[in-house]
Amino acid sequence: MRSGVWFSTLGLVASLAWLCCLSLRPVEGGKVLVMPVDGSHWLSMKILVKELTRLGHEVVVLVPETSLLIQGSDSYKTEIYKVPFTKDELDSIFNRLREGVFKQPPGIEDLFVNVRRLINFTSIQVEGCEYLLNNEPVMSRLKSKGFEVMLTDPFLPCGPILAHILSIPAVYFLRGLPCELDLKAAQCPSPRSYVPVFFSGNTDIMTFPQRVKNFMMSFLESYLCKVMYVHFDDLVSRYIERGMTFKDLVSQGAMWLLRYDFTFDWPKPIMPNMAFIGGINCAKKAPLPADLEEFVNGSGDDGFIVFTLGSMVSNMPEEKAKTFFDAFRQIPQRVVWRYTGTLPDDAPKNVRVMKWLPQNDLLAHPKARLFITHGGTHGIYEGICNAVPMLMFPLFGDQGDNVHRMVVRGVAEKLSMHDVSTETLLAALNKIIHDKSYKEKIDELSAVHHDRPVQPLDLAVFWMEFVMRHKGASHLRVAAHDLNWIQYHNLDVFGFLVIILITVVGLTLKCCIFCTRKCCKKGTAKRKSE
Amino acid sequence: MRSGVWFSTLGLVASLAWLCCLSLRPVEGGKVLVMPVDGSHWLSMKILVKELTRLGHEVVVLVPETSLLIQGSDSYKTEIYKVPFTKDELDSIFNRLREGVFKQPPGIEDLFVNVRRLINFTSIQVEGCEYLLNNEPVMSRLKSKGFEVMLTDPFLPCGPILAHILSIPAVYFLRGLPCELDLKAAQCPSPRSYVPVFFSGNTDIMTFPQRVKNFMMSFLESYLCKVMYVHFDDLVSRYIERGMTFKDLVSQGAMWLLRYDFTFDWPKPIMPNMAFIGGINCAKKAPLPADLEEFVNGSGDDGFIVFTLGSMVSNMPEEKAKTFFDAFRQIPQRVVWRYTGTLPDDAPKNVRVMKWLPQNDLLAHPKARLFITHGGTHGIYEGICNAVPMLMFPLFGDQGDNVHRMVVRGVAEKLSMHDVSTETLLAALNKIIHDKSYKEKIDELSAVHHDRPVQPLDLAVFWMEFVMRHKGASHLRVAAHDLNWIQYHNLDVFGFLVIILITVVGLTLKCCIFCTRKCCKKGTAKRKSE
Repeated sequence: MRSGVWFSTLGLVASLAWLCCLSLRPVEGGKVLVMPVDGSHWLSMKILVKELTRLGHEVVVLVPETSLLIQGSDSYKTEIYKVPFTKDELDSIFNRLREGVFKQPPGIEDLFVNVRRLINFTSIQVEGCEYLLNNEPVMSRLKSKGFEVMLTDPFLPCGPILAHILSIPAVYFLRGLPCELDLKAAQCPSPRSYVPVFFSGNTDIMTFPQRVKNFMMSFLESYLCKVMYVHFDDLVSRYIERGMTFKDLVSQGAMWLLRYDFTFDWPKPIMPNMAFIGGINCAKKAPLPADLEEFVNGSGDDGFIVFTLGSMVSNMPEEKAKTFFDAFRQIPQRVVWRYTGTLPDDAPKNVRVMKWLPQNDLLAHPKARLFITHGGTHGIYEGICNAVPMLMFPLFGDQGDNVHRMVVRGVAEKLSMHDVSTETLLAALNKIIHDKSYKEKIDELSAVHHDRPVQPLDLAVFWMEFVMRHKGASHLRVAAHDLNWIQYHNLDVFGFLVIILITVVGLTLKCCIFCTRKCCKKGTAKRKSE
Repeated sequence: MRSGVWFSTLGLVASLAWLCCLSLRPVEGGKVLVMPVDGSHWLSMKILVKELTRLGHEVVVLVPETSLLIQGSDSYKTEIYKVPFTKDELDSIFNRLREGVFKQPPGIEDLFVNVRRLINFTSIQVEGCEYLLNNEPVMSRLKSKGFEVMLTDPFLPCGPILAHILSIPAVYFLRGLPCELDLKAAQCPSPRSYVPVFFSGNTDIMTFPQRVKNFMMSFLESYLCKVMYVHFDDLVSRYIERGMTFKDLVSQGAMWLLRYDFTFDWPKPIMPNMAFIGGINCAKKAPLPADLEEFVNGSGDDGFIVFTLGSMVSNMPEEKAKTFFDAFRQIPQRVVWRYTGTLPDDAPKNVRVMKWLPQNDLLAHPKARLFITHGGTHGIYEGICNAVPMLMFPLFGDQGDNVHRMVVRGVAEKLSMHDVSTETLLAALNKIIHDKSYKEKIDELSAVHHDRPVQPLDLAVFWMEFVMRHKGASHLRVAAHDLNWIQYHNLDVFGFLVIILITVVGLTLKCCIFCTRKCCKKGTAKRKSE
């Protein structure tokens, strides 16, 4: 491109256009009900919840009495409901999950391990949901409030069920659902020839054997879908309509706010009621606390490494931690590590462990060289947003698949937590820090990610308000929702046309045979008479 | 929604976010080559061309020496090239087309008539394109300029061919291509069970017979595709690569700017590299000239009617015009009519005919009650933007299908130009003006249409600049482009698995038979020995 910087003019014009456009459609404070999913899912939804409150909407968040991360706040109202489990029970389920990740080897069995863990985690949440649905006083209060929209993560069924009972449109906020139930419920085509199945290890470009694997895994996925959602189907069938499945219920959603974009996922068909808000969690940056700023600034030209394993895993067995400390001792970079375990006596001085760390603000620091992460989408997007290459240790859930996406794009390396050694760790650290290609590629990815017409948080707010203004987004809902599988694939039409064709061909043949016989008979009779 | 107007705050915040986001990615004046399609297609593309120029880009529009509507302007540079036809020849082709529309009856044959007309029109344009491609001086100048992006309408093949020759990414600006070649080239799934085929008269909700019709018409469409694009395929094959089809070439486009949205089209699957800019032509409004303002204001409570048949048809046979004058005489509304034909001596005083009229500004007037239009997408979107119900007379091209979409939504009525009478016209006018449902429905449609996160012109500019900044939009391009039909549908995988299955079943059966025989033999031998 040539001379003449005019971006500020464009910005101003665009801003005025936006302002003018908004002033055409006054928006007043709406009533928003929020049914979040506990754990890291809540962390990015909270950003939208706070923004909606800040903008004047009356937001009520349903908070279970016992939870991992969901809490009350001054930024939004809450409605606390009882659940049939204690904090200890919840923690113990999660601790079992945490322990497993440092011991079990990854592999094809990962898929089944993940499914089992998922079912354990969701079963208890389903029980919590039932408690809420049977809680007459809370349900009456919710019904009387006149909510206009439900913001929920359909990873658990309670949000969609409540939206249906309260007759309000639901906006979904999610990364995706196991076995792609989100795509199935949204009627989004997902051609198996270039859309890789989760955990298949494929990319969008597949060889013939990879396509065979993808095809077969999609069958396996269909089976898993049935196993995984059996509790949800049962709940929906009991509380909404006999025979209705969880997928049927989820398909009623007005809008899908998907926490990814095509710097993370491979391009594929999408639906009109999908909006992509990947990176919504890394919009806001704050300066680092003075001592932390001093520590990372002191790293000089070598820079520093940010190391976290997500909001749910802040600890690891001592032996495992030693591997990391031993490797960190041998590099010139400083390390900021979210770690609540015991420190060894000889802990290296270039490592600062913290109970909690401002991950996004650290990654935004110009001296950040590398991000060691478990590969949750929040962390990945903070890596992409701030253009920091990653060393990834997938632990559970979708992380294995997330990590694969980043490794394939050349912006990360993957190691497995169960067999990492000081040597492999050192080699990986040095490779990513010194091979410039990782940084170049994530710079490119980051530039593309940031370059979008509307920032993710604004886009999410827009669609929430749109659904309130128009009581849904019915103009974006495909008619495929009213078709069954046979109708969708036009198999009845195909069958009908085949029957017609067979009938026509059959009749024509019969006519021909009849005529031929007639002719033959005539010929024989003529010859006989002759 | 409740009290508390805070839209201005939101607007300001959003504006600042936008401004901040843009300032992160400085944009400098880029070099844009534009290959437009003559006729009404050019009218909306011109809006984007002017905006790009205004924003500091160096825009060069390729203008054929002889054209219907494309002309030079102070707002952009032009490169004029010779074509092998005169203005008279071009006009005569178009006149034949114009004459036909007032005589021929509509119906199923419409489809074939449309195809023939289309081929007549495009053949001469293909010849013009060849002249350009063989024009050494012009081609050298284009090659030397270092353009960064090609803005073109792939309705004709010259733009995509030039983009390929000049090795620059192409951004397509279009309403759609005949026989849905746009969707096919973009690898966009189009399930025939709820995506109606053009001219099928179906909507997205179909009965079984309608699905049969849709299914069969999609076969017919495939055949038409071959007939319609034979000249284009030949041109591409000769100038780019032997055996390459027009569809192959078009599929290389970086971005699709589609001049519709889901207030006009029915919701369906889309692709990540599609942006919807329907209504781009009705963003800017100007006050009416004083005399016209006086005329329409004088219409009192009855309001006025805007009557145009598009940029290409400003006249009609006198007998036909009489029908309209006679009907207009009997209504209290005033009429502003774009008409260049002879006025009858007794022309009613409530009708003002004009050679050209500011259509969008008139429709934006609060007294506008009805829009009589041929159903081009430009006019339709001006009707939607300004929430004016429509009486539609489809003439040719996609208009029949466009009109159907509006009639089904209850915001318009349709009459056919060849058999309209004063009585039917009067009845339709009175129905639309006095039955409040038309106005209520178009008000709703208009509200939804306007309610979008980025206005169409800003969105089009954004993607043009994005493609320049990133030399394409490869992260949005699906891998399906590299698959053939068999691979895309995984038919080879399916075949392979069937062979495996047959082999396994066959071998198992053989084993069983072998074992059974062995057992039987043993049994017989035992019995014999006994």
